[in-house]
Amino acid sequence: MINVGLIGAGRMGSFHGATLAHRLPGTRLAAVADPAPGAAERLADRLGSKPKTLTDIHALLTDPAIDAVVISTPARTHADLVEAAAHAGKAVYCEKPMAVTLEEADRAITAAEKAGVPLQVGFNRRYDYGFRAAHEKIAAGGIGTPQLLRSLTRDPKLVDPAPIPPWTIFLETLIHDFDTLRFLNPGAEPVEVFAVADALVRPDCKDRGLLDTAMVTIRFDNGALATAEASFQAVYGYDVRGEVFGSGGMLTMGDVRGTHLTTYGADGVSASTVRYDQDLFHDAYVAELADFTEMVRTGRASAVTGADARAALSVALAAVKSVQSGGPVRIADLEGQ
Amino acid sequence: MINVGLIGAGRMGSFHGATLAHRLPGTRLAAVADPAPGAAERLADRLGSKPKTLTDIHALLTDPAIDAVVISTPARTHADLVEAAAHAGKAVYCEKPMAVTLEEADRAITAAEKAGVPLQVGFNRRYDYGFRAAHEKIAAGGIGTPQLLRSLTRDPKLVDPAPIPPWTIFLETLIHDFDTLRFLNPGAEPVEVFAVADALVRPDCKDRGLLDTAMVTIRFDNGALATAEASFQAVYGYDVRGEVFGSGGMLTMGDVRGTHLTTYGADGVSASTVRYDQDLFHDAYVAELADFTEMVRTGRASAVTGADARAALSVALAAVKSVQSGGPVRIADLEGQ
Amino acid sequence: MINVGLIGAGRMGSFHGATLAHRLPGTRLAAVADPAPGAAERLADRLGSKPKTLTDIHALLTDPAIDAVVISTPARTHADLVEAAAHAGKAVYCEKPMAVTLEEADRAITAAEKAGVPLQVGFNRRYDYGFRAAHEKIAAGGIGTPQLLRSLTRDPKLVDPAPIPPWTIFLETLIHDFDTLRFLNPGAEPVEVFAVADALVRPDCKDRGLLDTAMVTIRFDNGALATAEASFQAVYGYDVRGEVFGSGGMLTMGDVRGTHLTTYGADGVSASTVRYDQDLFHDAYVAELADFTEMVRTGRASAVTGADARAALSVALAAVKSVQSGGPVRIADLEGQ
Amino acid sequence: MINVGLIGAGRMGSFHGATLAHRLPGTRLAAVADPAPGAAERLADRLGSKPKTLTDIHALLTDPAIDAVVISTPARTHADLVEAAAHAGKAVYCEKPMAVTLEEADRAITAAEKAGVPLQVGFNRRYDYGFRAAHEKIAAGGIGTPQLLRSLTRDPKLVDPAPIPPWTIFLETLIHDFDTLRFLNPGAEPVEVFAVADALVRPDCKDRGLLDTAMVTIRFDNGALATAEASFQAVYGYDVRGEVFGSGGMLTMGDVRGTHLTTYGADGVSASTVRYDQDLFHDAYVAELADFTEMVRTGRASAVTGADARAALSVALAAVKSVQSGGPVRIADLEGQ
Repeated sequence: MINVGLIGAGRMGSFHGATLAHRLPGTRLAAVADPAPGAAERLADRLGSKPKTLTDIHALLTDPAIDAVVISTPARTHADLVEAAAHAGKAVYCEKPMAVTLEEADRAITAAEKAGVPLQVGFNRRYDYGFRAAHEKIAAGGIGTPQLLRSLTRDPKLVDPAPIPPWTIFLETLIHDFDTLRFLNPGAEPVEVFAVADALVRPDCKDRGLLDTAMVTIRFDNGALATAEASFQAVYGYDVRGEVFGSGGMLTMGDVRGTHLTTYGADGVSASTVRYDQDLFHDAYVAELADFTEMVRTGRASAVTGADARAALSVALAAVKSVQSGGPVRIADLEGQ
Repeated sequence: MINVGLIGAGRMGSFHGATLAHRLPGTRLAAVADPAPGAAERLADRLGSKPKTLTDIHALLTDPAIDAVVISTPARTHADLVEAAAHAGKAVYCEKPMAVTLEEADRAITAAEKAGVPLQVGFNRRYDYGFRAAHEKIAAGGIGTPQLLRSLTRDPKLVDPAPIPPWTIFLETLIHDFDTLRFLNPGAEPVEVFAVADALVRPDCKDRGLLDTAMVTIRFDNGALATAEASFQAVYGYDVRGEVFGSGGMLTMGDVRGTHLTTYGADGVSASTVRYDQDLFHDAYVAELADFTEMVRTGRASAVTGADARAALSVALAAVKSVQSGGPVRIADLEGQ
Repeated sequence: MINVGLIGAGRMGSFHGATLAHRLPGTRLAAVADPAPGAAERLADRLGSKPKTLTDIHALLTDPAIDAVVISTPARTHADLVEAAAHAGKAVYCEKPMAVTLEEADRAITAAEKAGVPLQVGFNRRYDYGFRAAHEKIAAGGIGTPQLLRSLTRDPKLVDPAPIPPWTIFLETLIHDFDTLRFLNPGAEPVEVFAVADALVRPDCKDRGLLDTAMVTIRFDNGALATAEASFQAVYGYDVRGEVFGSGGMLTMGDVRGTHLTTYGADGVSASTVRYDQDLFHDAYVAELADFTEMVRTGRASAVTGADARAALSVALAAVKSVQSGGPVRIADLEGQ
Repeated sequence: MINVGLIGAGRMGSFHGATLAHRLPGTRLAAVADPAPGAAERLADRLGSKPKTLTDIHALLTDPAIDAVVISTPARTHADLVEAAAHAGKAVYCEKPMAVTLEEADRAITAAEKAGVPLQVGFNRRYDYGFRAAHEKIAAGGIGTPQLLRSLTRDPKLVDPAPIPPWTIFLETLIHDFDTLRFLNPGAEPVEVFAVADALVRPDCKDRGLLDTAMVTIRFDNGALATAEASFQAVYGYDVRGEVFGSGGMLTMGDVRGTHLTTYGADGVSASTVRYDQDLFHDAYVAELADFTEMVRTGRASAVTGADARAALSVALAAVKSVQSGGPVRIADLEGQ
């Protein structure tokens, strides 16, 4: 039985909490910590299991009864928590992005390595059946050499732009697509990034720095050309798709339809769409924690490493710099920063 | 140059007239005959070509300048016109059904044989790219032995039930499906038929014999079991589909979507549907006349024979008898009637 | 916490066991009984939970620690076990078919009523998202009055025909489709049934009564005409689909594709298909037990009643009689048997 | 009757020749000119009509019996021929690209204006049913304001790279996509272009300047961000698709499947794909010439103007300059060149 401590009881933390409490045989949700008073208790109540609840994250980290932690806090706190958890000797699952600067990423990776603790990052699309099957097919040469790739993320609704930090679209949204493009172009690495972005959903928020729509071009070291696209508001639902075109064929992934029910009426043919990430990626969210706990149990290597997190972050930071400069940015030029 | 005379200037005749006048190199629409005063002239005007126009069909049939005729008159006149055209030595294309009794069908077939004129029947689905490719794949053993088949026809709108003769749903609508099922089960023949039918679109017309909805089960001599379905009113458009399930796989044919445009909106995903048979089967209607004129030109055998017309008619007549008797009817038992 | 006893540790029982042990908060798999020596133990080991294991089903039924039972034994034992469980005062979930004769069905229903225990039958398609959404849309009038319906089941592989009892295709396979057709035509009841069936997958087994392919026509009391189709072997996978055509539109359900990954290669476009019922209906199998345990907890009425099981059975028995007699059979004529 | 002279009897010219000879009532293919000895005659023979055949293009242009010309010659000759045809007072249909420099484009446009002759450019996708319906829906506000667009062209096979001039991928292939993106973002104009390109299909030809794969980012003056993608070799067939994501929804266009036949076999679900542009755009190619001849007949304004050709060319030239410079290029900065 692996005892897991959950850090962060927000939207994603709640989903992970339910997975740890109920969906993984051999795993126990032993504790929930959230600095917001009452948040951990409310989640524990909803789950109907009896984890310890805390507001003091470091008390959870130093609890000897805890084998592993799942970090689901705001992005800017991730790297420090990974470091602290590693120092405390806990296995670490960390939501994306694992860090928001390369220096932070390096510190987190080093800490885990030194402590010898397993570290897995929350790029859930790698656990989606379609994306994973695509990765395997490509890695096995099923479509020859990748030449043109596309990955996109469109969230269903921009409810409140106010609390969104600058560059979120690159650091928190497109970070998924940057990882996906690496996953779908196995063995290749990004070389150059060109990004354009704008406040098209909420032009009224542009003045204060909101970017809600972005398009990024990436050139890989195997010659492949890729685009990553994001929008904070797709009125038709949650839209995550991928496409890989290679010398021997093409793969497409993703479908906004949430069911196999199709309606034929006087207005034509129609079907409903997926509205929530927790619907579209329900199984993938469960599978990534199953894989994490299995890694903890068996001691095998991580399937989504700190190095993967760092590589996706590099693309995101290059995209930020590209928007700032108006020109393309080489990944290699980030390192000296 | 083949000179073709068109008999019947109604809806289907108009389409065939345009094909003969404009779409077939090496073919000329030489004459149009329709007993309704002015009908032939109006069609000729719309076509912008200069065929001879007549109200006397037999004048057209005896015109030595005419090589071949296309019969697009009401169903009950078909067999007599095929016979007359054969006696006049013209090659004959006849819309479905070629006949409405077996005796009529036999007379028409015999007349064409005796006169040595080519005879082709208007089962246009045999010329649709999808249905034809399915036939070829099945004939080549691509899905093993057919076991379960389905063919359906749903017309978009029942405008006026008044002029519809009894049993039309079997003799004029499902006749297509009966032929399609034979086409998709190559070499096999229907053995037994069970039919249910009702006036579900217009229950108010049931008293006077209207049947607007029907479902027919057919057992073939190779063991395959088939259904044919029809409705006179599908609010979503014109729906023609087929399915063949065999020991080695399945084929499906037909798509009500009329275009590759897909719309994603707040209500879900949608696409428009096909509304008219002349849209869905546009290319097939042209292809069948192209095949007919090529047959006339080259003297090769007919691809849709009088025997095919008779076989589909047998199923239709067995279906009528099944509705009348309430039980299954063997094709072999029709012959003595 | 509801304590559930599982009866039958075979393929379906194993799936239900995993659901009861791990996927339903508030539910505990308290015991597993299977008369085959070691079967219950092996399942308990695989599940990694610690249910009591027994070979004596009646010991399980009389265990006061058990609140409810899930019956996953061979079909012919179901009705007696429902009766026994009801007498023991346990809430009952029973796999389909609940009974194989009307007399048995009546006894089981009466026993549950007299004992005042909740009874739910395993028509899992009612819990599939697409089929359920279709039912709700139809019940709300979304496609007007149903006129033409279709439901089909094709299993992926006929491994061994030897142990298959006669009429299984109707009593155990098509029973799903008969229930689905009632579910998709809410408020209407079957009136007349005509069935054809054959041994097309294994013609060599026809002599000893195997029927592996069937097509059934059903007329409902609201005029709707339906077909149900089954085959024991579809080489392309597990195929379950539905179609309801009504005065105001059409709904289709089911998709053999198991993922959103599409491959485009030199041979065309392709996608993989679903191979197992436990993949296609994974969520539905969980949902039906979740609903069952919630029914036990809340005391609300059953969503899939003994009367539903009896109604589907009536159609199956009429289909058997239709094959035997070669003609249509009225449901009303079964009752006197 | 409009008498049309065809200039260029190559692959596209042959298709247009067949359209002019047989598919357009009220139009006559009066003459074919091709400088290659025998080319015009061979086309005339294949068509089975009797156009005059010439090797001297200017003889065709000065023939008073010719009302209009269709220019299907190599791209670099287009602008001069438009100018010459305009001087000769002929209505002009010119294949894309109408010109390969802005100066040439301006001369061609001015010549047509001065001569008062109608001028239409061969952006056939504007006549494809799906793309046109998308344009109309967007122009009517059906998906709100366009925010993210995509257009792609993948040819099925790079047979011989030798005769392909430098920059062809932008000037002759992506020129379609640049026009499509303007067509799908009605009223907006491109502002800035960033392009990456490579020889990924034939890396061995990179030395001598071949670019066979390209990805272009375009920023429009209404804020919309677009990508255009091209490859000279898609092993699965001819692939032309579009996507427009707006504030109120999304539209997608294009489908590589060439038929409604779907095959389900032991390896999964599959369908065949379209292999030739003349299959995919058959109807659009006919419709654009039908529109051209109707414009000639009625005197109404051109639907695809010289200004449209010039605008798409601007994007292509900016893409060329972007590849050369490695950075983004503003359309406004092209003008002074």
